[in-house]
Amino acid sequence: MGSLPLDASPRPLDPEAFSGESRAVVNFLAEYYRDVDKYPVRAAELEPGLLRKLLSEAAPEDGEPLEDVLEDVRRDILPGLTHWQSPSFFAYFPMNASTAGFAGEMLSVGLNVVPFVWAASPAAAELECVVVDWMAKLLGLPQRLLFSGGGGGVLQGSTCEAVVCTLAAARDRALARLGHESILKLVVYASDQTHVTFQKGARLVGIPPPNFRVIRTSAASGYGLTADAVRAAVDRDVARGLVPLYLCATVGTTGLGAVDPVRELGEEARRRGMWLHVDAAYAGSAAICQEFQELLDGVELADSVSMNPHKWFLTNMDCCCLWVASPRALTSARATDTEYLKNVGTVGGAAAVDYKDWQISLSRRFRAIKLWVVLRRYGADGLRAHIRRHVAAAKWFERAVTVDERFEVVVPRKLSLVCFRLRERFPEDDAVDDLNRELLAAVNESGQAFMTHFVVDGKFVIRLAVGGAMTEMKHVMDVWELLQGKAEEVLRRHQL
Amino acid sequence: MGSLPLDASPRPLDPEAFSGESRAVVNFLAEYYRDVDKYPVRAAELEPGLLRKLLSEAAPEDGEPLEDVLEDVRRDILPGLTHWQSPSFFAYFPMNASTAGFAGEMLSVGLNVVPFVWAASPAAAELECVVVDWMAKLLGLPQRLLFSGGGGGVLQGSTCEAVVCTLAAARDRALARLGHESILKLVVYASDQTHVTFQKGARLVGIPPPNFRVIRTSAASGYGLTADAVRAAVDRDVARGLVPLYLCATVGTTGLGAVDPVRELGEEARRRGMWLHVDAAYAGSAAICQEFQELLDGVELADSVSMNPHKWFLTNMDCCCLWVASPRALTSARATDTEYLKNVGTVGGAAAVDYKDWQISLSRRFRAIKLWVVLRRYGADGLRAHIRRHVAAAKWFERAVTVDERFEVVVPRKLSLVCFRLRERFPEDDAVDDLNRELLAAVNESGQAFMTHFVVDGKFVIRLAVGGAMTEMKHVMDVWELLQGKAEEVLRRHQL
Repeated sequence: MGSLPLDASPRPLDPEAFSGESRAVVNFLAEYYRDVDKYPVRAAELEPGLLRKLLSEAAPEDGEPLEDVLEDVRRDILPGLTHWQSPSFFAYFPMNASTAGFAGEMLSVGLNVVPFVWAASPAAAELECVVVDWMAKLLGLPQRLLFSGGGGGVLQGSTCEAVVCTLAAARDRALARLGHESILKLVVYASDQTHVTFQKGARLVGIPPPNFRVIRTSAASGYGLTADAVRAAVDRDVARGLVPLYLCATVGTTGLGAVDPVRELGEEARRRGMWLHVDAAYAGSAAICQEFQELLDGVELADSVSMNPHKWFLTNMDCCCLWVASPRALTSARATDTEYLKNVGTVGGAAAVDYKDWQISLSRRFRAIKLWVVLRRYGADGLRAHIRRHVAAAKWFERAVTVDERFEVVVPRKLSLVCFRLRERFPEDDAVDDLNRELLAAVNESGQAFMTHFVVDGKFVIRLAVGGAMTEMKHVMDVWELLQGKAEEVLRRHQL
Repeated sequence: MGSLPLDASPRPLDPEAFSGESRAVVNFLAEYYRDVDKYPVRAAELEPGLLRKLLSEAAPEDGEPLEDVLEDVRRDILPGLTHWQSPSFFAYFPMNASTAGFAGEMLSVGLNVVPFVWAASPAAAELECVVVDWMAKLLGLPQRLLFSGGGGGVLQGSTCEAVVCTLAAARDRALARLGHESILKLVVYASDQTHVTFQKGARLVGIPPPNFRVIRTSAASGYGLTADAVRAAVDRDVARGLVPLYLCATVGTTGLGAVDPVRELGEEARRRGMWLHVDAAYAGSAAICQEFQELLDGVELADSVSMNPHKWFLTNMDCCCLWVASPRALTSARATDTEYLKNVGTVGGAAAVDYKDWQISLSRRFRAIKLWVVLRRYGADGLRAHIRRHVAAAKWFERAVTVDERFEVVVPRKLSLVCFRLRERFPEDDAVDDLNRELLAAVNESGQAFMTHFVVDGKFVIRLAVGGAMTEMKHVMDVWELLQGKAEEVLRRHQL
């Protein structure tokens, strides 16, 4: 039978080496968290291609010690990162890391099972079914979106993925009735505040770009989409022989935190046989607090709902919950049946969920254990405290802006996002946008905080998105002080 | 300004708590690796819904200690998992965990940055550019797929995602020329051995299902797709006024490890203006060994190439490398431009890669640091040793099967996958499939190993996929002994 091959290095899962090296990384990260507020929050100016010059041109032939690798991370990589876990990160929407989220992710990554079909790791699929039902209950979602009510949920990587999957489901339901050539007639609707990835998703599934309706919103509705505007757009399209397919309602838009009225839009969607998706990527987390559940009023009319625990729910990247009222509609767009997957003795039958058909990819990670550990460790009450702490801090900040006559709040705050700016001194003061731009740049260049902007009705607006895992009242007070100081400088410089 | 809100618990990134709890999880996982071969490899029969009965109906109101959570994982979850990291896992394709892959993932998860645009974390985007070029060089890919040669790469989550993105790129390139209504005429080509997710991907991007050509392969070509068969199919479609769009060549198919001849297919694709994608999800890892690079012969004709370090390259889930010759073709299908993302002072310009446009989702994880740590820690030589060790073990197994007259090898082994079965005793012995089914069930039910099957030309075939991170020669010898014993029992039971 020939000689036995040598068992050469590496021994990639030797428990002793695993323990030692993993502890070293834990220490490295604990030190990072201890020092994170010493780094400039936004990465310093970095010349594109700089890191390439620092690193070798090819992978090393021989393995190198972990200490060398960590040292290079410290020296070459950390200075070029924007520190999303800094307590003074107020940009975009913060993405939460946490001790429990990290523990859960370690379990997922360490066990490294692939629950693509139920039978390939039954407990992993089962835990996912349980945890999405837990989440749905916490958010006050209707029974019809729970497994226990005939619907069900899945953990995906991002809202984009959820949108692509539900768009494809809506598309295939329509095309099954109308024939594939009708793909050219399908129309999707969203507002000018809806995240741009919705457009990307519609294009991905083959909706002709001219059939994407961006409906204007205005200050009058708090930049929420109105049912009247949707109805007008839909009626026009129907009159032209087009087919209304899918309406996206956003609860907490990315730019301004605007809330589309789910109930009104849901009624409009039903009237026209459209799929209604509710994207609550950011604001969904807040719905675990009873006082914010009204933001989702009417959600029982939705065909699908998504929210991202990886934003404001102490769950490290990535984790997006997607619930659907009709799992069959979702999976029939994606079902795969192949001999290769019929391999396991344990076939679950109707009660077993094959999650491969609930998402774009076949392979998938055991995300459920991460979200489950977060829920177990912090409990619903701990998570509510986390949300309320940030809402309270944002409220404090909004009030501070309001009483400072140099500033104005541009859109009424709903949760933890405050959109504000230096106020116009004279009617039609074009220069005010430039002043705000200058102010934001000064804040970000200080390295003491990082915020981002948005443009609405042609106005440049500064966003303060409270939500970092380490962000406390103190950091919000600090950034306000920083803003006041920089505003004084900017105004003085312009002799205002 | 009102009173300050209380800073209630949790403090989710307190460095002390983080250290303590993360160490506990490291210990838990080290113990798991130490004991993993004591679990039945494939999860025991589990009644669907069982876990739901064990767990509470809703998330707890109050947080619970980590020890309780880990104890529940041990008691309720581990017994219901299939142990993908067991050294006796020979099913599907193994998915590698490793100490370095885990360390890299911990860094990614702990830093929790989101490099969706270059400026949102420059060093993360830069490292990704560097590491995909490193990988391309190791695999011997042509210069045109490297950033340094005008192409470039990205780290995605799965081959499915890579296929969807490249299909959409090919589609949009065609439709820009032909008009969107031509989406009904686009045709994609693959073999009957191509992974079923390719079909799922084509459907997702709106290719009409009847325009998906599944070209038959046979034993004569080792179940590889022949250029003649492709040409015949394409010519038929062109004669009918259809438009050949995309050809998928697989190097190392999922069922049998068959290799499509990349050069011949590439020439055919060029002749017809089709996009050629080379899917080397599993076998690509082997191309770091010079003796296996010939499997990719002709890859310079490809428009895109993908392979999964999360399979056989010691990189924990998930990580899929995708390289394209024309980044512009890829990104123009997905580019998003919105005020929200123009937020950062540091704008990279031409040399800076905004990876959001290279994938389906906007948000993304810092996967680059994981693959980089793997390459640094093990070095190219360590990784080659890992591959060669498994190929040698599979070779030994193939030889053992060959010399045992009860068995036959069904398809010649190329790398670490051996497809074999109990041999027919009589011509047209229908019962032989049942015998093999029985044999596989007996092996899997023993809990000592887990293998899966495939069906080719109507024959039931057992697959031994060597590739687990802990799998050594000894485990392959053990599974052969197990197989022999179970074969004896099965044959005796049937008085053969």
